[in-house]
Amino acid sequence: MFVSEASKFAASPIREEDSIAAQLMKEGKKVVKLNTGDPAKYFKTPEYIIDAYINALKENKTFYSDSQGLPELREAIAKRHKKLYGADVSPSRIVITQGLSEALYFINTALIDRGDSAVIIRPYYPSYLPYLNIVGGKAAFADYDEERGWSIDTDELEHVVKKAKKLKYMLVTNPNNPTGSVLGRDILSEIAEIAKNHDLFLISDEIYDELVFEGKLVSISEVAKGIPHMVLNGASKNFDATGFRIGYMLLPNEDKKSTEFLKKLIDLARMRLSANTPAQYALAEGINNESEHSRSLRELREEIKSRVLFAVSEVNKSEYMHAVEPRGAFYVFPKLELEKLNLKDDKEFVSKMLTEEYIQLTRGSGFGSPGHIRIVALPSKEILGEAIAKMEGFCRRHAR
Amino acid sequence: MFVSEASKFAASPIREEDSIAAQLMKEGKKVVKLNTGDPAKYFKTPEYIIDAYINALKENKTFYSDSQGLPELREAIAKRHKKLYGADVSPSRIVITQGLSEALYFINTALIDRGDSAVIIRPYYPSYLPYLNIVGGKAAFADYDEERGWSIDTDELEHVVKKAKKLKYMLVTNPNNPTGSVLGRDILSEIAEIAKNHDLFLISDEIYDELVFEGKLVSISEVAKGIPHMVLNGASKNFDATGFRIGYMLLPNEDKKSTEFLKKLIDLARMRLSANTPAQYALAEGINNESEHSRSLRELREEIKSRVLFAVSEVNKSEYMHAVEPRGAFYVFPKLELEKLNLKDDKEFVSKMLTEEYIQLTRGSGFGSPGHIRIVALPSKEILGEAIAKMEGFCRRHAR
Repeated sequence: MFVSEASKFAASPIREEDSIAAQLMKEGKKVVKLNTGDPAKYFKTPEYIIDAYINALKENKTFYSDSQGLPELREAIAKRHKKLYGADVSPSRIVITQGLSEALYFINTALIDRGDSAVIIRPYYPSYLPYLNIVGGKAAFADYDEERGWSIDTDELEHVVKKAKKLKYMLVTNPNNPTGSVLGRDILSEIAEIAKNHDLFLISDEIYDELVFEGKLVSISEVAKGIPHMVLNGASKNFDATGFRIGYMLLPNEDKKSTEFLKKLIDLARMRLSANTPAQYALAEGINNESEHSRSLRELREEIKSRVLFAVSEVNKSEYMHAVEPRGAFYVFPKLELEKLNLKDDKEFVSKMLTEEYIQLTRGSGFGSPGHIRIVALPSKEILGEAIAKMEGFCRRHAR
Repeated sequence: MFVSEASKFAASPIREEDSIAAQLMKEGKKVVKLNTGDPAKYFKTPEYIIDAYINALKENKTFYSDSQGLPELREAIAKRHKKLYGADVSPSRIVITQGLSEALYFINTALIDRGDSAVIIRPYYPSYLPYLNIVGGKAAFADYDEERGWSIDTDELEHVVKKAKKLKYMLVTNPNNPTGSVLGRDILSEIAEIAKNHDLFLISDEIYDELVFEGKLVSISEVAKGIPHMVLNGASKNFDATGFRIGYMLLPNEDKKSTEFLKKLIDLARMRLSANTPAQYALAEGINNESEHSRSLRELREEIKSRVLFAVSEVNKSEYMHAVEPRGAFYVFPKLELEKLNLKDDKEFVSKMLTEEYIQLTRGSGFGSPGHIRIVALPSKEILGEAIAKMEGFCRRHAR
C-alpha cells in the first residue's frame, strides 16, 4: 500500500454516499439530501452579518490575520461567554480555527501520543473518531442511554474511565448531535467531577448552544470552574454561517495543564498562518450586534424547533422507527425496528433509501450507534413530511 | 508532560518573535515587520476578485461547499493549468484546501507512517518540516547550492535519495521561498527522473508560479508526464489574497499511486466538510477573468520585482551580508558574514535586530540554512531602504 496506515481511519459517514447521490442527480433524479446539517442551505445567513463581511472586503481586510485569531473576534467571544454563562475567559485563552474540524485536529495532535485514549460517548459526532485514531489514539467508549432519553449514566461513565488506560481527555457534546439531547446542570457537574477525580481534560462541544428549544443551555464552564476544560463553538450553527469555516476553542481555566495545552494549540495555529480574515470580522459583528443576533436567532430557532418537532412526530407514527424527542440542534435520530424489516442493518437501510427512494440519510453506525439513522430536519415540513412518508413506504415494502 | 510528544515539533520560525514584537508595539515602538510574506498587506487584492467575493455573499453562498472543492473553482484551475503549462488535469483530480498548510497536513497524514521519510531541500519553507515530523516522518535533507545561485546538484540529490530509507515523497519549491531561485527545465527533468527511478512521489510547491521576474516558470507537470506527481498552488500570492485561505493540490497523472493518494486526500477533506465557500467563488472568478488577472498580475509583479531588486542591491552594498539575486517570489535571503560580527548566530542577529532596531526578520535556521536571514521585500523602497540601512548600522555596531 502506497498510502499511510493512519489514512485508513480517514472517513466521513455523513458524506460517504455523496458520490452515489451525485451520480443519481446526474441521471436526472431529484435526491433529497437529509444528511448534512447545513442550516445555511435552508435559511439565509443574517443580513447584518453578510453586510459586515462585505464591509471587511471593501476595507481590504484580505491579509493574513493573527494566527490565534482576530483580536476583535476573540474579545467578542469572551464577552459572549461571560454574558451567556457568567464565566470569565480572557481573549488570550481563545483560539480561532478553520471550523471545529480544525479544532479537533489541533486537540488530538496536541494531546494524543500513540496508545493514548480519550472518552467518547456514543452516539458521537462522526469526525471525533478519525481525528483521534489518525494520531494513534483509541476511544474508550461510554454510551448515552436511549431508554432514559439519551441521558448519561454517570456510574457507568466512571466505570469506563476507571477501566481505560492512558486517558487524556473526555469529550461531551451538548446539545448532542445526532440525538438533540441536552445535558443539565446536575449531570454536567457529575461529569466534571469525574474528569477532575481522574485527571482528564474535559472538552465540551457546544456548537448548538443557542439552538436549545426550551430554556437555556448550561455550559460546561459554569460547572467546571477550577477544572481544566475547553469549550468548542463557532459560526456555523448559531450564526447560520457554515461556509465561513470559523470555529473556536475556549480554555477558561488558567491552570498549568490548560496553559501548556493552549501554548501548543497556538503553535499549531501559527503553522497554518490564519483563518479566513474577512469571515472573522463578520463573525465579530455577528456576536457584537446583540439585538440583531437575538432577533435572527429567535426566528431561526423557532422555525427549526417547529420542523424538528414535526419530523419526530411523523417518524414516531411509524411502527418501524422510534425517536426520542430532541430538545435542541436540528436532527432526529430514530432507532430502526430491524427485526421487523428484511434489511440487515442501518447501512443497508440508508444505502437502499438512497438508490430506491432518492433520499440521503446517515447511518447510525457512523455515530457509533448501529441500528439507527440520522435525519437532518432542516428542510420545509412539506419536504420532511414527504421524505418520512417515503421512508414509511420503504419500510412497509421491506417488512418481513 | 501533559501535551503529546508530537506537539514538540509544532513550530513557526516566521512568527516566533510575534509576541515580542507585539509587546514592543504596545510600548509605543514602531516595529517594521519584514517577516511575513503577505502581499495583501501592501497591495490591495484586485477589485474584480473582491467584487466576485461580494457577489457570492449577496447571493447567499454561505453554505458548506463540496468537500473536494467547489466544482466551478476546480474547473477554472484545470483550465489555468492547461493554458499556462499545456498539462491536462481533470477537475476530479484537484482538491481545494484551506491554504497550502492544510495541503501539507493532508499530504503527510495520507502518506507518512512513523519512520517514513521525505526529501526536503534546504533552505525550505519552514512549515514543511513540522507537518512531516508531527506524523512521525523524518526529513532526508538535500541542499540547494548557494555558490551556484541556489541551484541543485542532482548528483548530490540522488546520493541523498539512495542513502535514505523508507522514502515516500520528494518536495521541491519553485520559485523558491526563501531564496527566490527558479529551477529550469533541465534540472526539473533530472529531478523527475530521480523521483521515477527511486519510486518517490514528486511534489512541487509552485505557489509563486506567476511571480517570476523574467520569462515563464516551467511547471513540474511539464516534465513529469507519466510520473506520479503533485502540484501545489493557491490564491495567496499570484492573486494577492492571503486572507482567503484557499490553496489547492493537482494530481494530474492517473497512475495507481496518484489515484490511491487522491482518494485519501478527498477522505481527509470530507472530514472537515469544506473550505470557505464565498472565497472559492471569488478565486474562480480571479482565475477565469483572464484579462483582469493578467493586468493586475503584471502590475503586482513589476512592482514586486522592482522592490526585490532594490532590496538585494542595497543588501549587497554591505560587507556583512551577501544575497544571491532572486529571480521570483518576494524575499531576499542574505548570508551573514558572522565571522565579522560579535553575534553568535542568525538567531541572535534576528532577535537583537528586533529589540534594538525594531525590525522583525526571520532567521535562516528556520529554513534549515543557519547563518542566513530572510527579508520580506514587499514594503515600499523607502521603508526597505531605511530598514536595510538600520541593518547595516546594526552590523557595524556589532562588528568584531
